Amino acid sequence: MLVGAIDCGGTKVLAALVDEKGTVFAPQRASIPTHDKARYFGGAVSMLRDACREQGVAFETIERVGVSIPGMVDETGLVLGSPSAGWSEFPVKPILRPFLPDRGIQLFLENDVNACALAERRFASGGDDFIWLTVSTGIGGAIVSGGHLLRGATSCAGEIGHMKVEFDDPAPCGCGDCGCLEAHASGTAIGRASVAAGIGPDALACAKAAQMGDPVAQEIWQRAGGYIGRALAAAACVVNPRAIYLGGGVSSSFNLFSQGLKNAFFSAVLPQCAEVNIQPTRLGYNASLLGAAALCFRESGALRAS
Amino acid sequence: MLVGAIDCGGTKVLAALVDEKGTVFAPQRASIPTHDKARYFGGAVSMLRDACREQGVAFETIERVGVSIPGMVDETGLVLGSPSAGWSEFPVKPILRPFLPDRGIQLFLENDVNACALAERRFASGGDDFIWLTVSTGIGGAIVSGGHLLRGATSCAGEIGHMKVEFDDPAPCGCGDCGCLEAHASGTAIGRASVAAGIGPDALACAKAAQMGDPVAQEIWQRAGGYIGRALAAAACVVNPRAIYLGGGVSSSFNLFSQGLKNAFFSAVLPQCAEVNIQPTRLGYNASLLGAAALCFRESGALRAS
Repeated sequence: MLVGAIDCGGTKVLAALVDEKGTVFAPQRASIPTHDKARYFGGAVSMLRDACREQGVAFETIERVGVSIPGMVDETGLVLGSPSAGWSEFPVKPILRPFLPDRGIQLFLENDVNACALAERRFASGGDDFIWLTVSTGIGGAIVSGGHLLRGATSCAGEIGHMKVEFDDPAPCGCGDCGCLEAHASGTAIGRASVAAGIGPDALACAKAAQMGDPVAQEIWQRAGGYIGRALAAAACVVNPRAIYLGGGVSSSFNLFSQGLKNAFFSAVLPQCAEVNIQPTRLGYNASLLGAAALCFRESGALRAS
Repeated sequence: MLVGAIDCGGTKVLAALVDEKGTVFAPQRASIPTHDKARYFGGAVSMLRDACREQGVAFETIERVGVSIPGMVDETGLVLGSPSAGWSEFPVKPILRPFLPDRGIQLFLENDVNACALAERRFASGGDDFIWLTVSTGIGGAIVSGGHLLRGATSCAGEIGHMKVEFDDPAPCGCGDCGCLEAHASGTAIGRASVAAGIGPDALACAKAAQMGDPVAQEIWQRAGGYIGRALAAAACVVNPRAIYLGGGVSSSFNLFSQGLKNAFFSAVLPQCAEVNIQPTRLGYNASLLGAAALCFRESGALRAS
């Protein structure tokens, strides 16, 4: 069975058809401004129509569509907010519905980081007990424990990016507090350190410099890894995972910060919780898109919006 | 239905009959040395027989017995170890069986802190998403998320006592590392600070001094509360609980450290995860005993050892 998958990002949208094995067909990619939500979600569905056309599949025959959202989503399909898209609270179903066929297509919604974790579980290494960490412009996390995705009391479980990791010299965070992991180890934080050190304007420049052997750039990456390891060790004491998977753009530089991460992690985690395999996801750029597809293939417990 | 409940502690054993509502009948209490396991568990079952006799119930008619264990227990009933009882790994079923009737009595085993959380869920305030924290000689935790007790990959979820909370001046912990919550806020840690300040030999003396208005003793308690709040804020970012319940002997002094705890918690937790009710359990001294009973009343998912 082919399902429709849409990865709604803060800066770009991906859409494709995906089968049970996670094979992606006719992927579409576009940038759509987020401020006009009808145009944004209408454009996203239109990309899925394009994928169908390209694949020679009638759009009307698609029975399930999964959508990953760059923000917190509750169990009724209410988007609670998205800093990266600039959205405050709104219900997404009434916006998406007019663009879909009239008959009862099944629509599944999920936060993009949770979706990545579900993709890792269904299409990659997975397992029943793991932490997913997206390290990108910001840092988000998701927890799978005993085979269940943790939601928490207000749909905010897995907010590892806002665990405090620096107490002596805490940097300000987008959440309004300071000392958060995101303020010390996100792409934004690495970029800021790169600018301060005169290396370059962003995390990418810092990665290139580190790969060329610049010791200051290398130190910036390993220090960021140390903060990630510190937060993950604390999270591992709480949920005792078997594995930790890292995704997001920054994680493609895993080799630049893995040593700092692992040193901090294994020195801080309780020995009984230390049997943890830490690795970058092999889902790469498609993790969230595959997550949207994974929503459609879940046996039960899916967040169904219609 | 009456079930048999046994709370196996490192220094004392409680046994009683308990009904569906959590009413405790004919409670027995004794100290039994832990080094001879057959004598220890035989003595514990003997106390349950005494409770039956006292209550006028034939021991043979008890269909279910729950046992809480002061250490980590895996899903097969293997005790992985108990620092407080001085036990390394051993299977507890073959030791308990000979003391129980031949017919197929149902035997349920659980770690004592997990058991407390299950008691809170069944017999007290509970809910589907909460953290339980036992603050006693050591510090242990348990997580209920989406109505499920988290076990983790190696049955060690909820080890909040070993989250790192002090990085500048970390105190050594029983786990071999330093800077753990347990090393800075357990009864042992409070007692150590009390001795160093010349207040008294243990946490109890420090509590009495604080209640009498001693500002140094009060500061020791609030500082311990601050560390607890720091660890719980990090844990709350991970699992997003609705409530946090504190049990254990130290928690009976909740009023002495609640302000430090709440200040640290609410200043560090992500606002979206801050709708949390923090309170001492009302189960008191019987929490773990009631937890042993709660094991017998669980609809499903119980750790059944026979």
